[in-house]
Amino acid sequence: MVRLNTAALALIDSAPLAHLVTLNQDGSPQVSIIWLGRDGDDLVSGHVDPGQLKMRNMARDPRVTLSMESPTANQYGFREYLVVHAQVKLTDGGAAELLHTLAQTYIGPGTEFPLMPDPPPGQVAHYRITKITGMGDWSDPTG
Amino acid sequence: MVRLNTAALALIDSAPLAHLVTLNQDGSPQVSIIWLGRDGDDLVSGHVDPGQLKMRNMARDPRVTLSMESPTANQYGFREYLVVHAQVKLTDGGAAELLHTLAQTYIGPGTEFPLMPDPPPGQVAHYRITKITGMGDWSDPTG
Repeated sequence: MVRLNTAALALIDSAPLAHLVTLNQDGSPQVSIIWLGRDGDDLVSGHVDPGQLKMRNMARDPRVTLSMESPTANQYGFREYLVVHAQVKLTDGGAAELLHTLAQTYIGPGTEFPLMPDPPPGQVAHYRITKITGMGDWSDPTG
Repeated sequence: MVRLNTAALALIDSAPLAHLVTLNQDGSPQVSIIWLGRDGDDLVSGHVDPGQLKMRNMARDPRVTLSMESPTANQYGFREYLVVHAQVKLTDGGAAELLHTLAQTYIGPGTEFPLMPDPPPGQVAHYRITKITGMGDWSDPTG
């Protein structure tokens, strides 16, 4: 198991937009921006519509990446960024509750979310981290 | 050919960080953040080291995506973003000149770049756009 270090956890807790890469049936990449939370050593995201392309992709091929920009730049002026490589597993239910929790940091305290009277159970994606790359203090997960 | 509309071109000209997705030999996704420029209807990036993983990946499989965050949010509080799907072609030489030009907007006017006395010719990646997705006015390229 690969664990995120303190710097990487701080970045994720700051509610960064995560560029989720999934693989289409023909092997080409697909990208969606999502909100990310934590569940123990895994990362998690909530999705009310299991029919979306990214959800069908993740159900077929669990190899995904999540990339996030850091607000800080290194000494050369390059913005740092975190890339999490993961194996994803989808579970049924809990999407609305997770999205509501994440909306409190991603949009703001007191946000009502999802904006539907009776949200479907949806799915939660659980990301088991396999490798950490990018540019920053997190590139060495022992650091 | 797919063309970027005015809103998408404005986003690219604002020097956004581009999350470049390439495909590893085993089909899994690889992500690096790069600077993007324009060359006619194509997008371009400069790379001084053709030995990097992303360069070897692009030489083997031309299917890539470039995703960029927009500074604006929609009415639900979601940040807009642009995803460019492309076929990439690498050409030899010109990397340092392109990177120097891009550094003027990505870091700032007067930036010396690359920071090496005699930079190698490197490679330029030319992205021929095949599809536009994401969330924003650009999702409909005729708009």
